[in-house]
This record gives sequence, structure tokens and C-alpha cells, in this order.
Amino acid sequence: MSKKLQEEVIQSLQALNPPQPPKLVGFLSSEDPAARVYAEWTGRNCRELGFEFELREVDREDLEESLIAANADAGVHGIIVYYPIYGSQHDRYLQQIVGLNKDVEGLSHTYIFNMYQNIRFLDEERKVKSILPCTPLAVIKVLEYLQIYNTILPYGNRLHGRTITVINRSEVVGRPLAALLANDGAYVYSVDVNDVLGFHRGQGLKKKRHEVTEKPGWTMKDCIPLSDVVISGVPGDKFKVPLELIKDGAVCINFSSEKNFAPGVKDRASIYIPAIGKMTIVVLLRNLLRLYQNTLAQQNSS
Amino acid sequence: MSKKLQEEVIQSLQALNPPQPPKLVGFLSSEDPAARVYAEWTGRNCRELGFEFELREVDREDLEESLIAANADAGVHGIIVYYPIYGSQHDRYLQQIVGLNKDVEGLSHTYIFNMYQNIRFLDEERKVKSILPCTPLAVIKVLEYLQIYNTILPYGNRLHGRTITVINRSEVVGRPLAALLANDGAYVYSVDVNDVLGFHRGQGLKKKRHEVTEKPGWTMKDCIPLSDVVISGVPGDKFKVPLELIKDGAVCINFSSEKNFAPGVKDRASIYIPAIGKMTIVVLLRNLLRLYQNTLAQQNSS
Repeated sequence: MSKKLQEEVIQSLQALNPPQPPKLVGFLSSEDPAARVYAEWTGRNCRELGFEFELREVDREDLEESLIAANADAGVHGIIVYYPIYGSQHDRYLQQIVGLNKDVEGLSHTYIFNMYQNIRFLDEERKVKSILPCTPLAVIKVLEYLQIYNTILPYGNRLHGRTITVINRSEVVGRPLAALLANDGAYVYSVDVNDVLGFHRGQGLKKKRHEVTEKPGWTMKDCIPLSDVVISGVPGDKFKVPLELIKDGAVCINFSSEKNFAPGVKDRASIYIPAIGKMTIVVLLRNLLRLYQNTLAQQNSS
Repeated sequence: MSKKLQEEVIQSLQALNPPQPPKLVGFLSSEDPAARVYAEWTGRNCRELGFEFELREVDREDLEESLIAANADAGVHGIIVYYPIYGSQHDRYLQQIVGLNKDVEGLSHTYIFNMYQNIRFLDEERKVKSILPCTPLAVIKVLEYLQIYNTILPYGNRLHGRTITVINRSEVVGRPLAALLANDGAYVYSVDVNDVLGFHRGQGLKKKRHEVTEKPGWTMKDCIPLSDVVISGVPGDKFKVPLELIKDGAVCINFSSEKNFAPGVKDRASIYIPAIGKMTIVVLLRNLLRLYQNTLAQQNSS
């Protein structure tokens, strides 16, 4: 599934024909072996698609200064930081240090704000594209591949008529994903342990961006049976989507590192996607390419 | 203690002689009765010092749009939001929506970044002052009042020679406070449940901003006895600073809502400050005045 997007990225990079391959720098500042594995995996994917990758191992007390230096270095085109480092709000602070023009992960406040507000460019001339956060964007790319996005409809409205449940409302994935899908025209039920919220652009997509409606008393039982697509990303191995609620022929996507759908999901779902990690890494490299293109666009206009 | 700063603010406001009193708008979007009490208290203090205050009660799902509207409204000079609202990362997102020129709380990433980096102005001409977050700044103002800041020393180095322990390393108060004190020249021991870190500008204040040194194996037992000032802000009523560690004649300041120092502190400390809430609100209004002055400076230079 990720192959198609991979080829698109390779072709776009070749068409650009840069004097040097765009360079992604990864910062590793924790002892977590999973972070190192992920860093190495980033590097391998990066090189496969024709980009350069450099891993910098930095003491966490020096990370802020190292990021500032990388922001100022014209030879660095993208920056990825392997979290958690402090595992606290300190990590949120560090995320905001990465320069807007190098933020391949799309975690800068400006990008997140634009995503929620459905603003797709950084400039008024609409040449410099806003970057979307990788994991939510990977889910979007999966849904495009699966033709849940209907290309007959105008760009920006291609989920009109779809009903989607997203289970998890974290600021990292669940809430941005619900907002992105609703901004593209879907009616989204966003589920967390406390409540269900409706994200939507109103009857006939009258609004330019999504609004949020409370659904007092609603639970998964009310919204999953209505949904064409069920997307779940609950951490830990305890939570399972109740299979009996899933509409026959629905599309089911898991973005948790654990399996949120029991094996029986295959008997109900028309399509079941157990993991999106491969798509996420390709999306990250697509963002790297976007940032490179943005830099060229800004140089040409100045 | 807050009276002196209060009078300074009143006099500065009168000297400016604005056509209308600068206006602070508070946003209340939670059912928490403590938030309402705090909002009313803000309003009372605001009016007493000659500012205008308006409380806007907004459904939390409409808060983002309401903040964007207030950012664009030239009649609004400062914005305060009463947290917690969602009690999650969503609140951090909302904090970043408040415009830089209206952020009386000093919570925008740009302000926090400048604070850590010891950058005191937003512009190269050094006319537009960077805003400091209220609670850490209130502690600074208390230390200035108590003459821990030595005005014989050059501005920016007035804590040189002081040793200070700060207990709590949250991103909201403890870590910024440790950084501010170290940037002003102190040697600061920052203590949390896991470890002790040294924040300092090096021998002879050679560095322009603080750096952080790990203190492997250190605990409160090692740093409190060395400290001229002990500042504690541990939430909850369980933690107490071990009184026997406090140096005779040290200055003790509590910024927790609970009492981190047992009553016996008065027998050891030369000065004991049990709470800083009153100073915090005056500092907030001083920030409001700063933002107003910044706007004038920006208008004059453009």
C-alpha cells in the first residue's frame, strides 16, 4: 500500500533533480532502544528513496542548542527528534524549537493550527504548503488508497457523505485526525473514555472548517454501527473494538502499536488494515520533499 | 510586599495616560468554581489598578474561535484564559492560540524560548520587551523586594554569588524559575523526584545563558544545606521540606498552593514567604502594561 506513495515520492524527487539529495537529520537523545531501532529504520527508508540521512547523538541537556544550530544550517533540510526524551512537558517545549521550514513531523504549533483551521498554505500566494503531522496524514493516505476519498468530488470535500469513527482523542493523533477527516467533509465521531464528540462541517458542508458538537450520553454503541470506517488507536493491549458493533463491510484501520481489533474483524470488515507504520515513514519523507519544495518556492519569490 | 510593585504599576499607567484604560479579557470555559473565583479576583485587582476587565464565558468548543476574534480586536490589550479546560494537551494547544501581543501570562512559545535563552527583547532595536511567565516572575519580584538581588551588581548579574534550591521542575514554574535565576547569575539546584540538576552560567558567569549540569547521586540533603534561598512548589499536602537541612538564616519561599514548609521554618529562616499569589496577580497586570507599551513602541517604529 505504501509502495504507491513511495514511487510518487521517488519520482517527484527525480523531477526536482537537486544538486545534492535533501538531507534529514535525526536527533537521538535517549537510551531507549526502541528509539534507536526507529532511527535506523528512518535512515534505511530515507536512503532507499534517494534522500540523505544523518543520525546525531546528543546529550539531552545539549539538544536545545543542537536543534538551534541545525535550524540555522542550510545543509539540513529536515529534522526529526526521537521522543520521548524527558517524557514530560519539556518534550513539548523541545518540539517547538524545530524550525518551521525543517519540521518534517509537522508538530510546530503553526502547522497544527493550520490543520485545525483547514488552512492549507503558509502564504497568501498559496505557494508554500503547510505540513501535516505524519501519523494522521498516514491514515489519510491509507483512506485515499482505499478510495474512501472519492476523487469525483471536489478537492477538499472528498469525504462528503462518509461517516467515520475515530477511537482515541489524543493531541498527537486522535484529535488532529478527526479534524482532518471532518475538514475533508466526513461526519466524524471522536470517541474517548469520557465521551463522544461530532466533528463536521455542518449540513451541506456549509462551514469552511469543522465544528465540534457534543453528543451527551453517546458511547461507541451509538456511533460505530453508523460508521463506514472505524479507526482505532488506543494504547495498551486491553482495549478491543466490540466487533458486533461494526457494520458489515466497514473499513477498519488500526493505528495503535497494539491490536485494537480482534482477529474476527476480518469476518465483518470489507478491508482491515492492521498497522500504518510503513505509510507513516513514507509520509515523513514526503514532508521532507515538501519542505525542500517550499524552500525553493520561497527562494524564487524573494 | 506586592504593594510596592502595585504602586509602580499604577504610576506607570498614569504616566502613560492612555485615552482608554487598557483592557484585559478573561475567558472562562470550565465549570470549575475555583476558576470563577480566580477570574473575579483578577477583575477586582485589575480595576483597583486602573485597568478594565471583561469576563467572557464561552463554551469550550468555541474557545479557539473566540480567542482568534480577541486577538484581532484592537480594543483588547490582554487575554487570560482560566485553565484547566480539557485538562490535557488540548490546553497546551489553546495556550498557543493567544496572540503574542496579548499574552499577559507569558505562555507563548516565543516568550518561553526567550526566557530560557536569556533574550530580553523581541526586536533587535531592543524596544519591544519579551514577556516573562507570571508565577516565576512573581518569585523574582519577591527576591528583588527581599534584596536577594544585589543592585550594586550590573543588571542581569544581580544574583551572582547566590546559591538557590528550587524544588519542583515542572514546565509551568519550576524549570523556568531555575533558568531565570541562573540566567541572572545564581547557582541553582533544581530538585525533582528523580534527580538534582545544576543550572548556572559557569565560573565567573562566562556564559551568556545558563547551562545544565547533572549531579549524579545528589538529593535535597546535598543541596539545601548549601543554599541561601530555598524555594518550593510541590503540589499536594504530603511533601514537606526537611527543616533540619535548611541553613540558619536562609530565605524560604513557598509557591505551592499547599504549605511545603512546616511551621518550624520560622526558627531557621531569616525570612519566610508562605505564598506568592498576590504578587502573581500584580505581575500579570505589569505584563498587561508591558504589552500596552510594546504596542505603542511598535506603532511608533512603524
